[in-house]
Amino acid sequence: MPVSRRGEIPPFVVMEVAKAAVELERAGRPVFHLEVGQPSTPAPQTALAAARRALDEDILGYTLATGVHRLRARIAEHYRRVHGIEIPIERIVATTGSSGGFLLAFLAAFDGKGRVAIAAPSYPCYRNILGALDVEVVAVPCGPETRYQLTPALIEEAARVHGAFDGVIVASPSNPTGSIISEPDMRALSGYCRAARMTLISDEIYQGIQYDIPVVTAAALDEEAIVLNSFSKYFSMTGWRIGWMITPPTLLRSVEKLAQNFFISPPTISQLAASAAFDATEELDGHVRRYRANHDIVMAALPSLGINQYAPPDGAFYVYADVSHLTDDSVKFCADLLQATGVAITPGVDFDVERGHRTIRISYCTSTGAVTEAMERLKAYCAERG
Amino acid sequence: MPVSRRGEIPPFVVMEVAKAAVELERAGRPVFHLEVGQPSTPAPQTALAAARRALDEDILGYTLATGVHRLRARIAEHYRRVHGIEIPIERIVATTGSSGGFLLAFLAAFDGKGRVAIAAPSYPCYRNILGALDVEVVAVPCGPETRYQLTPALIEEAARVHGAFDGVIVASPSNPTGSIISEPDMRALSGYCRAARMTLISDEIYQGIQYDIPVVTAAALDEEAIVLNSFSKYFSMTGWRIGWMITPPTLLRSVEKLAQNFFISPPTISQLAASAAFDATEELDGHVRRYRANHDIVMAALPSLGINQYAPPDGAFYVYADVSHLTDDSVKFCADLLQATGVAITPGVDFDVERGHRTIRISYCTSTGAVTEAMERLKAYCAERG
Repeated sequence: MPVSRRGEIPPFVVMEVAKAAVELERAGRPVFHLEVGQPSTPAPQTALAAARRALDEDILGYTLATGVHRLRARIAEHYRRVHGIEIPIERIVATTGSSGGFLLAFLAAFDGKGRVAIAAPSYPCYRNILGALDVEVVAVPCGPETRYQLTPALIEEAARVHGAFDGVIVASPSNPTGSIISEPDMRALSGYCRAARMTLISDEIYQGIQYDIPVVTAAALDEEAIVLNSFSKYFSMTGWRIGWMITPPTLLRSVEKLAQNFFISPPTISQLAASAAFDATEELDGHVRRYRANHDIVMAALPSLGINQYAPPDGAFYVYADVSHLTDDSVKFCADLLQATGVAITPGVDFDVERGHRTIRISYCTSTGAVTEAMERLKAYCAERG
Repeated sequence: MPVSRRGEIPPFVVMEVAKAAVELERAGRPVFHLEVGQPSTPAPQTALAAARRALDEDILGYTLATGVHRLRARIAEHYRRVHGIEIPIERIVATTGSSGGFLLAFLAAFDGKGRVAIAAPSYPCYRNILGALDVEVVAVPCGPETRYQLTPALIEEAARVHGAFDGVIVASPSNPTGSIISEPDMRALSGYCRAARMTLISDEIYQGIQYDIPVVTAAALDEEAIVLNSFSKYFSMTGWRIGWMITPPTLLRSVEKLAQNFFISPPTISQLAASAAFDATEELDGHVRRYRANHDIVMAALPSLGINQYAPPDGAFYVYADVSHLTDDSVKFCADLLQATGVAITPGVDFDVERGHRTIRISYCTSTGAVTEAMERLKAYCAERG
């Protein structure tokens, strides 16, 4: 039978690296997982307790497509407490991970033949999902001048070349760079998008994991922005596949109908567990302290790897670095490194198709011991290669 | 901001009825849930025990995009035991409910401007998801002559009017009709689709719930068919959002890459719980006996409702019936019925846009007590109307 063009989507390379790492582990080799953006810790105790209660007391059937009221109310409270803003519960939609949120946002905002700007480097699934939905994606090269983030000037310039955009996706803190968009910069982006009637989608799934500079949510500045968030990162609940979305009032009904048809509802036990994750601030902030310690270990190791160009790692748990002194084929470099040392890191091609063959992403959300040992192995490997 | 045409998707009406039913319940009224296709029972004990173990012992992080090996191996074993066929594990892909499977199947098989035939009546999300993906859907009217199922002759005739099809979706047992495609009929469909190079998608999520005639899986007849299944119905695990797909060898790589990008992985605790659901045959077959008892109660009530035209309810837990003697506006009929009696059933418009204003679907998967009382109330209501 014919294979669709849609099926000719690029792989999510980090998942391919993860697959090779799992195979190596199965063969009995020690592997240091600095490839996937996945906390090495389980869900917080409060969430696990809520899940146990749910197994005892709840039928765990479908919920409303937008999620259970309890969870949405806790998310609203979170915005009141952390950001000091009031988000009406009906604008909060529980999603099947941020992946589910991306699909709903993209479908609600863009038609086939739409055109969307993203930063290069950025999360590969933006490009891959939009491409499969027949939306044109323009990856705008971003560098140290703009802290690897889009700006109105960069978008404007790209629009002159490619035609007007229907939307813009930004991430703060960003995957893969970790860089944060400051409040004035986010305000400038939001004002620009409103004026040009472009949908601003703000990926905020790494918020809560930041080190020295504060993050701002686009929801505080712009009711028309679509905000995506997740319990996977700060809340340490990756495999639970639960996230949320703050929906502009104009898109509410579309998002609800799309959610009914595409998902029915997000996993129920995950919704109930996530509701209780907001009570685990102390445990979760402990993880952030560990990420910060790991961040410092990686930063201290970079000079001895000869790495001196990297994005500002303001938050998330990534360092995105130029390794052109070591390779011009990052996929091969990462594959060789994995085989030689057991250290799994991600080649930049996932995030920047054009320039990523000379960059890598190091994810440091694993244990401090594993990060330390991995850096030692990486140093030895790079020293050997000269 | 502009709303996409994609967002102008029809609602999944049964979810709207469910919403109204929940509101009525919240207002303190007793409600009889004969609207949603959702077992009233929790996951089987073996699955719950596995979930409890997973909470204690597993980090519950991401898995491979196609699911954990343990689950896929149990699914392969299920096909050996129930259908006597051997499915290679790599062709088995765990999905985020059958909803996730539909999206993967549709994206892997069809491009924008593709054309797909479905039966009218059928599951509304086929049409709604495909429509949002810019695939043209032709709903071919099916009636008692073909037991409400597509046949090569009907597809051929529709192709003459609408143009050739890229694919065909069938369901056995069907939602909303419950009718089963016999082995010779499935063989005819599969042979016809292969010869015409159309992708056959077989929705088998109600298999395991059948009464007198045996079901056949398209996987036993045709390696090129896409088979979708789920733990939601027979296995009574709706809110866990876990299902599976048997993928043709030619689509394997596409499906894997799409799954990586669109989902990352299905919920981990659900994968582990579902693996153990295969050990609960006795408990689950008990549910099927209850469905059968409920089926008999509904069938016995139909004559006194004046209903004498309905699809053959061979399996699933639905009766799809013509109510043109009672109404020519099934949406209003169902809304009035809910308000007057607390009995929630689904108007046929979800399943058949053209003819569904004169049909209803009764779902009888709730408790036998609730079905009995609902039928009494329905009789009294219909008698009153004349």
